[in-house]
Amino acid sequence: MRQDEAQGAGTTFADFVAATGWADIVAQGHEAKRSILNFFATALGSAYDPAVSAALRTLLLFSGAATSSIIGRPERLDMMCASFLNAISANLLDFDDTHLDTIIHPAAPVAAPVLALAQARGLSGQAVLTAFVLGVEIECRIGNAVSPGHYARGWHITSTCGVFGAAAACAKLLGLSANQISNAIGIAASQSAGIIENLPSAAKNVSVGNAARNGLFAALLASEGYSASPRAIEGPLGWARAMGDEPDLARLTGGLGKSWEIAKNTYKPYPAGIVFHSVIDACFKLRTKLNIDDIASITVQGSALLLARGDRVVLNERDARVSIHHCAACALLLGAAGVPEFSEATVFRPDVASLREKVRAQLDASLPDAAARVSIQLTSGETLSEIVMAAKGSLADPLSDRDIEAKLRDCARLGGTNWDIDRIIDDVWRLDTLGDVSSLMKPNG
Amino acid sequence: MRQDEAQGAGTTFADFVAATGWADIVAQGHEAKRSILNFFATALGSAYDPAVSAALRTLLLFSGAATSSIIGRPERLDMMCASFLNAISANLLDFDDTHLDTIIHPAAPVAAPVLALAQARGLSGQAVLTAFVLGVEIECRIGNAVSPGHYARGWHITSTCGVFGAAAACAKLLGLSANQISNAIGIAASQSAGIIENLPSAAKNVSVGNAARNGLFAALLASEGYSASPRAIEGPLGWARAMGDEPDLARLTGGLGKSWEIAKNTYKPYPAGIVFHSVIDACFKLRTKLNIDDIASITVQGSALLLARGDRVVLNERDARVSIHHCAACALLLGAAGVPEFSEATVFRPDVASLREKVRAQLDASLPDAAARVSIQLTSGETLSEIVMAAKGSLADPLSDRDIEAKLRDCARLGGTNWDIDRIIDDVWRLDTLGDVSSLMKPNG
Repeated sequence: MRQDEAQGAGTTFADFVAATGWADIVAQGHEAKRSILNFFATALGSAYDPAVSAALRTLLLFSGAATSSIIGRPERLDMMCASFLNAISANLLDFDDTHLDTIIHPAAPVAAPVLALAQARGLSGQAVLTAFVLGVEIECRIGNAVSPGHYARGWHITSTCGVFGAAAACAKLLGLSANQISNAIGIAASQSAGIIENLPSAAKNVSVGNAARNGLFAALLASEGYSASPRAIEGPLGWARAMGDEPDLARLTGGLGKSWEIAKNTYKPYPAGIVFHSVIDACFKLRTKLNIDDIASITVQGSALLLARGDRVVLNERDARVSIHHCAACALLLGAAGVPEFSEATVFRPDVASLREKVRAQLDASLPDAAARVSIQLTSGETLSEIVMAAKGSLADPLSDRDIEAKLRDCARLGGTNWDIDRIIDDVWRLDTLGDVSSLMKPNG
Repeated sequence: MRQDEAQGAGTTFADFVAATGWADIVAQGHEAKRSILNFFATALGSAYDPAVSAALRTLLLFSGAATSSIIGRPERLDMMCASFLNAISANLLDFDDTHLDTIIHPAAPVAAPVLALAQARGLSGQAVLTAFVLGVEIECRIGNAVSPGHYARGWHITSTCGVFGAAAACAKLLGLSANQISNAIGIAASQSAGIIENLPSAAKNVSVGNAARNGLFAALLASEGYSASPRAIEGPLGWARAMGDEPDLARLTGGLGKSWEIAKNTYKPYPAGIVFHSVIDACFKLRTKLNIDDIASITVQGSALLLARGDRVVLNERDARVSIHHCAACALLLGAAGVPEFSEATVFRPDVASLREKVRAQLDASLPDAAARVSIQLTSGETLSEIVMAAKGSLADPLSDRDIEAKLRDCARLGGTNWDIDRIIDDVWRLDTLGDVSSLMKPNG
């Protein structure tokens, strides 16, 4: 079949999204709740971050009727602005969930507009869970189809693919027709943006926030009759090829409904880039075997992705969260890699900075992206080495439900929110029974 | 000098934008006024287009205090929403200005936020003209640095480069520091989007509107302290390379202030893609030499760009405006190629459709992008041929000031606005003397 005779991926996705209901995704419900709980954890943790506050000051002048909460704070704005802000706070610390095949952080761009829209319209928990699972599915399938080249070329894949997930999820939540859902997904293709070069700056937040906001916008425009190409994703002058990718059509739409990308979602124990988690775990193993003062040098070996992401000079906290050097140094020196270990106070500690200087990154192309080998050369001449193939938080060693709850409590405490945390945890676990999710989006239920 | 030691393009642009004032661009003032007059022409012409009305219905719920006009209509919204809507209407008919080296339509994404912001803040005409000229400069230089590959790969260059121009112009208008201007330009890089695959659909409007809205947003975020990489445009994981381009650094920032891209702006006599204008002019020459009924077939020869853009099946008015076949058919049959000739009524006329069927597009790689050769095979066996190297409206044969005024009057009449057209024309020509441009943005001054 010639491509121009084939059904566009937008149509295939839209038919699937339109036809899928709660009964079809009920088995994915628990993982969806874990993702949403982790989303609340990270959003609460950054609710009062200066980057969120600055964006809030900017958007306060540009909001319609204030229907939707800024998670962890007293303010409400319209659902477009709330989508933007909640996606920022959920992603800000690089502590959100990760779809390991693509390094997409699925929840921030999808859960933010789904919850903002559901709060504004008083929608049910089952509707939220269904839309969220479908949005994550579309987002991650599009990511699968262009990985690993897409990220490597400079695209911030959470932003560039997130907007599709947000569009599909919001279109579902709005009850749009299959044709309108296809249009929403196609409109998302014209709004997909975000570059790696900006990752160590506040500009990163803008593309993540826009993915959430613009996915919702795409669905709203589609509901008003806006159209798009059904081949906006994979067409000859479409999104994937413009972005530099030859899309893998089998991974894009093959076997829809037979497997679920949400089942591959993972949750980080450390607020650092996911590829650094094996570095941290290896250092945790090594630190019990040595005295810090005996370290002559530290060699971290990993894949090209690890080095591309993390072999960098650390000038600020953002750098630290994507630095091989800082992750190794704080894990070895402090035996911890939580939010405090990536704060400005820790990043500029002289002993941390001094140990960072001893770290060298080295390519080992035989290692997969999620693995790391850390070798420590002691002043005695002895070398100690540990390899970690599957870090804590990976699919092979996942966080438990209780781990995620504990992470939420830690984040909320550090974030300084006064929202009722017990109530959020309870509401998320019983989300499929809530007739109206707006209680979840209130400080005190 | 190694690249990582060089000053980022964002810094170079920002220093230039910060240091340039009205006195430096006064010689560009007249061309800026012609561009802005043409911007009003096309915005007024589409003020009540269903695509504008649908976007307005969508955004009405998501606007803050209504400070800024929707051109040609009674409604006002906040300056972010007004930027989006006015950029859409200015670009909707493919009738806006064109920077021929890049095929960027410079004014829509830049003038829309500049005027919306200036109206909201009561800024002067000289400030508007200065910001506009600078925004167009940054927008088109970035386009130059990635042309012609960028558009050919599937990027809607007006959208992808427009957001930079909007950011630079709004940053200038807000009086930001050089460092903040650099941040605004870098934030724009994380918001650059828009694909050719969606051109024949309403989704095109979304990327054009976003370019305007998000450029303003970038400047506002920069004024609140948001940062970005100074090498967001040309860095190794930055905008240009992610987009698939190896940026031409000399064309990007070389000779800033010595030449001006606004001087290369052109204005269309026909509401069709710019590359089709030479097709239309050639057909106008041919139609006086034959009877329509004697036409056996029509061969249009042109560059790969002409064929890539225009060798298409016409299903609707959007297709018609980028169709070699329709442009040739209506020029030959009707002797005109104005807004009515691209309306649904004309596109579906049986005699027009029948003549479209006789048109064949053929590559002649020796022709430049702006040229076309039209050869008509008559039923008698005779062949008539005309070649046009520089269409009406090109730099070699520009529209006069009076032509642009007449275009504005035609557009306004067809668009159904009740804004005072004489007053708009007068205000634009004396824009450098207006202390507050908000009179320009009102229905009756």
